[in-house]
Amino acid sequence: MRGKLYGIGVGPGDPELLTLKAKRILDGAEVIAVPVKAAGEASTALEIIRPVVNVENKRCMEVVFQMHPREVERQRCRREACERLVQELSQGKSIAMITLGDVSVYSTYMYVNQYVAQAGYETEIIPGIPSFCSGAAAAQLSLMEGNESLAIVPSARDTQNLAIALDHFENLVVMKAGNSMEKLIGMLLERKISLDSATVISCVGMPGEYIGPLDTRREYSYFTTVIIKKYGEKPFSN
Amino acid sequence: MRGKLYGIGVGPGDPELLTLKAKRILDGAEVIAVPVKAAGEASTALEIIRPVVNVENKRCMEVVFQMHPREVERQRCRREACERLVQELSQGKSIAMITLGDVSVYSTYMYVNQYVAQAGYETEIIPGIPSFCSGAAAAQLSLMEGNESLAIVPSARDTQNLAIALDHFENLVVMKAGNSMEKLIGMLLERKISLDSATVISCVGMPGEYIGPLDTRREYSYFTTVIIKKYGEKPFSN
Repeated sequence: MRGKLYGIGVGPGDPELLTLKAKRILDGAEVIAVPVKAAGEASTALEIIRPVVNVENKRCMEVVFQMHPREVERQRCRREACERLVQELSQGKSIAMITLGDVSVYSTYMYVNQYVAQAGYETEIIPGIPSFCSGAAAAQLSLMEGNESLAIVPSARDTQNLAIALDHFENLVVMKAGNSMEKLIGMLLERKISLDSATVISCVGMPGEYIGPLDTRREYSYFTTVIIKKYGEKPFSN
Repeated sequence: MRGKLYGIGVGPGDPELLTLKAKRILDGAEVIAVPVKAAGEASTALEIIRPVVNVENKRCMEVVFQMHPREVERQRCRREACERLVQELSQGKSIAMITLGDVSVYSTYMYVNQYVAQAGYETEIIPGIPSFCSGAAAAQLSLMEGNESLAIVPSARDTQNLAIALDHFENLVVMKAGNSMEKLIGMLLERKISLDSATVISCVGMPGEYIGPLDTRREYSYFTTVIIKKYGEKPFSN
């Protein structure tokens, strides 16, 4: 009996945005693997599942992915984490590794998946709601309509892809925009794109929640998403 | 007592990919609005929820959004549909309108939301798993990592945004690629982007399912998504 590894997207924050499948697999898992950047660190993903999954009767296994400045250290740390997971799987235990949002969107899980699959174990990925979809829902905006396209960029710090997207795409999502908001505003103004076309979604369901127009005088947290619709929402024509 | 309208993303096909919230609201709704292109048409979204929501004890209200070639006819049809929904809401009934995938991704629901909100009724949007996230999960691929960006284009028929995305973005999703696959292949070859960087995801969980490399001799259905990772999946470095 060999264990199986599940990579589970737990969604952006609201425990009710877990899928039925994520809940079923978490309920049945013997081990829940919780990725953290440092031992003992609080895990947002774990807090998300706690109200809907009974985690008390299972083992929560902290998996440390250090953000060490040296690549070789990060690799060593990842390898160690993966080896510990394989050790559990070899004893026939099934592991559900949780990840914030969707598994395919900026998640370290894919490294683990690759390692574990190469070691000969079965793996399965359960998609989750990505933050840009829940952000659009909270702001009651569409991300794209008809023949439109969408560009998703990781922040406004690296401006090359952002510039191309602003010049050519109808719709954009800028993730983790909190610490590069001034740069983003500058790029919009440079292109005479109205600041009204940008909607900020910050800390949804948390203290300091803000969903609204880009307010240049406001401070934004790291977990801030900006949706830019260059041509606005298509009006309902009567 | 005025009713409330919910726009609910039911995910890409697997009933278990409904969120806990979608299920709770559907379970409690008096009316389920089912968008169709023609009266009497089968609804994929309705078939998705049927195994997990008891729809027998509620009224399913067909809402027709005709794909008429004349814009004025499409508008008339949309307005009629919205008026019928407002009629129900004015009688205090809550309506859950279901939509395939996520509500913000190419869905007609946003028109309805705008009309109903303008008529003074409360609306709420429940995000769903978009097909590109479940496609990436099925293919065990990431959509983006680290500082990468993602471009999502509606098909390869309109090549302008696709060309820009292929030239500048690390990762692309081409949705509804079934009927423009030859064009896509031509554009990849032109740019010397290896066909191996493209993964086709077609009819997941349905007859004719295919998840694999872009096979030029194969025929693809309309519901085919292509994920292109120009630089491949980053290997796990030991």
